[in-house]
Amino acid sequence: MGIDATNANSVVSYEADQKYGTEYHKRFENWLRDFQENDRSACCAQTDVKGNRPWRPHEQLDPDLYVHRVETLSDGIVIRGAKVHNSYAPVVEWIPVIPTRRLVEGEGDWAVSCVVPSDAEGVKLIVSATQISTHKNLGAPGPYGGADSLTVFDNVFVPWEHVFLNGEYELGGRLALLFALYHRHSYTGCKPAMTDVLMGASALMAECNGIEGKSHVGDKLAEMICTAELCYGTGIAAGINGEKSASGTYIPDIVYCNVSRRHAGINIYHEFDILADIAGGMPATLPREGDWENEETRPYLEKYMMRNPKVPVEDQHRAFRWVQDISCSDMAGVTQYAGVHGGGSPRMEQIAILGSYNMEKVKNIAKRLAGIPIKEKYSCDRLGTIPKL
Amino acid sequence: MGIDATNANSVVSYEADQKYGTEYHKRFENWLRDFQENDRSACCAQTDVKGNRPWRPHEQLDPDLYVHRVETLSDGIVIRGAKVHNSYAPVVEWIPVIPTRRLVEGEGDWAVSCVVPSDAEGVKLIVSATQISTHKNLGAPGPYGGADSLTVFDNVFVPWEHVFLNGEYELGGRLALLFALYHRHSYTGCKPAMTDVLMGASALMAECNGIEGKSHVGDKLAEMICTAELCYGTGIAAGINGEKSASGTYIPDIVYCNVSRRHAGINIYHEFDILADIAGGMPATLPREGDWENEETRPYLEKYMMRNPKVPVEDQHRAFRWVQDISCSDMAGVTQYAGVHGGGSPRMEQIAILGSYNMEKVKNIAKRLAGIPIKEKYSCDRLGTIPKL
Amino acid sequence: MGIDATNANSVVSYEADQKYGTEYHKRFENWLRDFQENDRSACCAQTDVKGNRPWRPHEQLDPDLYVHRVETLSDGIVIRGAKVHNSYAPVVEWIPVIPTRRLVEGEGDWAVSCVVPSDAEGVKLIVSATQISTHKNLGAPGPYGGADSLTVFDNVFVPWEHVFLNGEYELGGRLALLFALYHRHSYTGCKPAMTDVLMGASALMAECNGIEGKSHVGDKLAEMICTAELCYGTGIAAGINGEKSASGTYIPDIVYCNVSRRHAGINIYHEFDILADIAGGMPATLPREGDWENEETRPYLEKYMMRNPKVPVEDQHRAFRWVQDISCSDMAGVTQYAGVHGGGSPRMEQIAILGSYNMEKVKNIAKRLAGIPIKEKYSCDRLGTIPKL
Amino acid sequence: MGIDATNANSVVSYEADQKYGTEYHKRFENWLRDFQENDRSACCAQTDVKGNRPWRPHEQLDPDLYVHRVETLSDGIVIRGAKVHNSYAPVVEWIPVIPTRRLVEGEGDWAVSCVVPSDAEGVKLIVSATQISTHKNLGAPGPYGGADSLTVFDNVFVPWEHVFLNGEYELGGRLALLFALYHRHSYTGCKPAMTDVLMGASALMAECNGIEGKSHVGDKLAEMICTAELCYGTGIAAGINGEKSASGTYIPDIVYCNVSRRHAGINIYHEFDILADIAGGMPATLPREGDWENEETRPYLEKYMMRNPKVPVEDQHRAFRWVQDISCSDMAGVTQYAGVHGGGSPRMEQIAILGSYNMEKVKNIAKRLAGIPIKEKYSCDRLGTIPKL
Repeated sequence: MGIDATNANSVVSYEADQKYGTEYHKRFENWLRDFQENDRSACCAQTDVKGNRPWRPHEQLDPDLYVHRVETLSDGIVIRGAKVHNSYAPVVEWIPVIPTRRLVEGEGDWAVSCVVPSDAEGVKLIVSATQISTHKNLGAPGPYGGADSLTVFDNVFVPWEHVFLNGEYELGGRLALLFALYHRHSYTGCKPAMTDVLMGASALMAECNGIEGKSHVGDKLAEMICTAELCYGTGIAAGINGEKSASGTYIPDIVYCNVSRRHAGINIYHEFDILADIAGGMPATLPREGDWENEETRPYLEKYMMRNPKVPVEDQHRAFRWVQDISCSDMAGVTQYAGVHGGGSPRMEQIAILGSYNMEKVKNIAKRLAGIPIKEKYSCDRLGTIPKL
Repeated sequence: MGIDATNANSVVSYEADQKYGTEYHKRFENWLRDFQENDRSACCAQTDVKGNRPWRPHEQLDPDLYVHRVETLSDGIVIRGAKVHNSYAPVVEWIPVIPTRRLVEGEGDWAVSCVVPSDAEGVKLIVSATQISTHKNLGAPGPYGGADSLTVFDNVFVPWEHVFLNGEYELGGRLALLFALYHRHSYTGCKPAMTDVLMGASALMAECNGIEGKSHVGDKLAEMICTAELCYGTGIAAGINGEKSASGTYIPDIVYCNVSRRHAGINIYHEFDILADIAGGMPATLPREGDWENEETRPYLEKYMMRNPKVPVEDQHRAFRWVQDISCSDMAGVTQYAGVHGGGSPRMEQIAILGSYNMEKVKNIAKRLAGIPIKEKYSCDRLGTIPKL
Repeated sequence: MGIDATNANSVVSYEADQKYGTEYHKRFENWLRDFQENDRSACCAQTDVKGNRPWRPHEQLDPDLYVHRVETLSDGIVIRGAKVHNSYAPVVEWIPVIPTRRLVEGEGDWAVSCVVPSDAEGVKLIVSATQISTHKNLGAPGPYGGADSLTVFDNVFVPWEHVFLNGEYELGGRLALLFALYHRHSYTGCKPAMTDVLMGASALMAECNGIEGKSHVGDKLAEMICTAELCYGTGIAAGINGEKSASGTYIPDIVYCNVSRRHAGINIYHEFDILADIAGGMPATLPREGDWENEETRPYLEKYMMRNPKVPVEDQHRAFRWVQDISCSDMAGVTQYAGVHGGGSPRMEQIAILGSYNMEKVKNIAKRLAGIPIKEKYSCDRLGTIPKL
Repeated sequence: MGIDATNANSVVSYEADQKYGTEYHKRFENWLRDFQENDRSACCAQTDVKGNRPWRPHEQLDPDLYVHRVETLSDGIVIRGAKVHNSYAPVVEWIPVIPTRRLVEGEGDWAVSCVVPSDAEGVKLIVSATQISTHKNLGAPGPYGGADSLTVFDNVFVPWEHVFLNGEYELGGRLALLFALYHRHSYTGCKPAMTDVLMGASALMAECNGIEGKSHVGDKLAEMICTAELCYGTGIAAGINGEKSASGTYIPDIVYCNVSRRHAGINIYHEFDILADIAGGMPATLPREGDWENEETRPYLEKYMMRNPKVPVEDQHRAFRWVQDISCSDMAGVTQYAGVHGGGSPRMEQIAILGSYNMEKVKNIAKRLAGIPIKEKYSCDRLGTIPKL
């Protein structure tokens, strides 16, 4: 998320300077130089807690439900509020803070972009960590997992040099959307990789069960390949069709990014379904690791877990244990939710797609074929139907 | 599962007596009388560990990979092998043991039906238990959970009075299928109840998020209602169209039972998907319960978790905590796997459906309309197209 | 549709008499007696042309866009307007006319129920007929097809004896909904029969192509069986759970009727998809019948159309010709549209389902499990969650 | 199809020359030069009639069921057999003839590639033409339609200069697969265009019905956009990741081409479903054009077809008439079948995908995470997982 926030800041800080004569981009470049030269790490704090969903930031009972500027000092600003779902915030050095939605006139206080050290005064990380437990004696890599924080900004001071937007509400909204766009483009790579893990797990289960050549197994693996490659391929198209912004940073194609991310999001649970389907019930009821180490029970397990005779029984245990880890655990649930909502849920992508697609042009194709007069000149320039951000 | 095994035994033990002059049904009724009068409890041990899937019982490298009779004594038989996925075996008094598949000639040793006390000598329960942790201070009921065992029968002696089938291979297969049929009929009630829980959770999340009236929320809740009621309604039809067996026990309609169970099985992951979709990401990254009890962090959580102002913030916490429990936990994974495989996976139901449906009759409708001569007399008796077991 | 309108009239005319002291039911019974004794036929004119969809009847620019009472005379009333999609109107003796939607106060003129002879003065049938052409020399039954009319009521006089509702707006809405309910219950039988035809066609195509035993063919036929039997089974449950109305006529369960009809509606195009998938491209590009009769081309067709050697080539021709008739023709399109919209589109059923389902009760299950206090007494009476109409 | 056959011939004729010292490529280039300089047109005859599907070419009862070489003369060869589904054959000058499947040793007679003038002696086109009828007086463009032929090659002589492969069975199979690959790449452009037409029609119907802003309409249009853009975007990726063959002609990426074509194929019926859903039933029962021209009925139609008051009633008629033409006609069925099978059905793409995907590499990711030893060196080079043809 750090790279996506940084890309978005690079574009919007430049545009702000062009429009308002500010010096955000220079500040940004100074910060970026240090970031790159010293190999810093960053996450991104975008998603506000948002209070009552149907209300705008300025309509909430408590204005802090969206992070906002509460004071302007001679040497900087003070911000307050809280952001959620901040993956990896506990292990990074910098937290870029950006708006989470379009803003309207009068919401300038919420149009703030800045970078904050993760140990700055007033920053409170209330962390929820998830870890896949390792097999103690079975040689799997790990432990690994993740950590998300509810990041509270309790009157945090930000010096001018770290402020990249400060009240320009229309650019605040643009920054929010651009971050989402870059983030969804990143997902066109990371989501197919997640599918690869689940697909590999499914293929491994088929091998353990001795059903690799079965027709229905092939059907299901093919579905997973298609999900991964449609997303990844469309991500390539998003890059190829990207456009150079005034700042020099490229912006990927909005429609391709969003159709790819949406497709991944609507398939994640189905991928776990396929894994369970091919695995059979064993990952759900597998005897505990301790029973494998207990000299009374281990012989029974070795005798009765034997399946495909080409796979050593200990490897079968490793395989089912790991599939249990990734599909029957709190980490499994977190992966499923992240697959739906990380980077914006399918519904958010739908909004982005409908908002940027030139439906009038497509409707004009229909009108022409139906013999209905159309006012604007008919054009069959297909790529032109996709307006840029 | 105990009731389903008992129903199946009641039918098949009677048929065996009719065919072979045995006295299985009398034994069964004696056992059942004690069972009912003393309010005993039972599970069912059906699913063998099965070794290499493409091989039959007698083809396995180790004959114990399917439970079988290893010795016949004057006062009973000795069985050996192991059954998996035995839900609730650790908390019942009786374990009925029945075959898991159709059997062929020469597989009489595997055609054994009997009931075994769960603490009989040689019975080893290697248990995998799953528990939903309770909120310590938030008043949710619990803890609750489940337990499945790998049940090893290590040369277990079964006296004649508890043996209800002993070598009749073709009735062994029929018993396996009848148990599955009764079990799937039970699922036409229990699966919709699971949907009710997930549907209620989804509706609760919509209330917390203040999006109850949104069109897409209605779409998703309607999908859940349809899944529940198609399964439940078809289960009613299975009962209404049941047939009385020679023993007096009714057998539900095979096609309706199987289409209902299959429909539930192919929808379970999608139901979790809908819950995640409506809930948003909060169940995945919710701060831990300890943070709510910590006086330093609790005020932040109360301030920033405020959503729909009509729902008290503590109830919001309860709601998201519980949804986390049921969707981001090992229990969630177990529920998902059970939803796919419990009672037989969708593929098993497909086999049962294709095996019992009168496709020739349907094809004859087509032939008649196409003007193709058909040999058998054409009949439009629709219900007659569904052959009974 | 005639039976469904008649059922609805029998219930509502009685209720009106109970509530308002009218004599609609007696008139209805007199008409029904003649109808039954003389074996009359009827369709139903329900769907108004409706003008601009978002507007109510009384808001339309032209009040005639919903059929309504324009004058009350001493011996009856005069109605005006037009109904669409009136299947079989051209071949019936009676056209029952009923409202198409809920009505509000002030819309009494639109709350009219009556029966009109199809050749009454002022009735204009503008008919769109669809016919499946027969093979001239290949022995298929037919021709058969259907006919729908736009039925214009151009100041049609209806004598009192044929008026079964006349201004009672709240009962007008109930009549509209009850007709839809009966009609959807009828669909729980007729839609599965349509699936039988498509399923039989698919099985026949598999036989012609010699791929009957292929795994993917079994998968697809199983899908069709499941669609048919879920709909039909749930229809049985709708009957079993029906309730006797005050008039003595039974009313089927609203939730079961609607989930069944919706399930059929969302699957119809997919069923044609399966047929095309199994058939291959031949039904689309099959040489014309004349080429089979032409002595120059017939030998080529006989030689090159040979497929499964067990199926005579002429039967192969008959089979592909008929599948072309039902899947590549105007009748195919009409069948597809009827499958979606006949009896109310899936969206209409969703509205009916959400409107009658007790979601609060299901939400209370969730609240109880989450430890959230609930006001009303908790009940687990599942069937009670489905309110009657 | 002509361009796809030509691309495939350009690659394979070159490879044959390299391997066997033949001069196919020179002949091909000579033919191509004339083709380009004189702006000729071509289709492609690939799909053999194939007889009994489970049998290979040399196993058929009649060897002519796959087109093959029956005689070799001093100045060329003679071929016999028939090809089906040859779109546009009746209106082109050249018919390239290529094999339809992999071939095995001993099937050299079927490994023939050549180009044949469409009026060559012995070529018989048995044509099935489909035409969308025009509105006579309503100004729609047309008539337009298509024509497919069963193309019989009844001992057709082909001179050497037009023979580009002649017995090299393994290259015959490669030619078949390469044509399919190019053709599927073409479909990544043509199928989204078909979706554009159906999407435009759906948007037009929403406008006529006055429901453009409804949430469920947006959901459905978004689905269509996603189908179109996932296919088109992945087609771009297929081009970008193409590889230059020895002949200089580029070959698109096999996995991207196939996942794109498959995705289009499994969605075509659903797209018609969406159109019907949004249109309502009117396209199915619309009064005939003659009723619009009849002075007695036209006033009724004008009065009662009024919907969205912003759309002139005549344009409404044009719109519904055209949607009837494209969705309730033989052309609609042909479009649906072509959407499933044109370029190879989804099942054929699945075979191509599973055959070319490096599943072992993906399984090794799983093994590594599960702690299972793997033999080959682990690599995370993702693009490398997609083997080239």
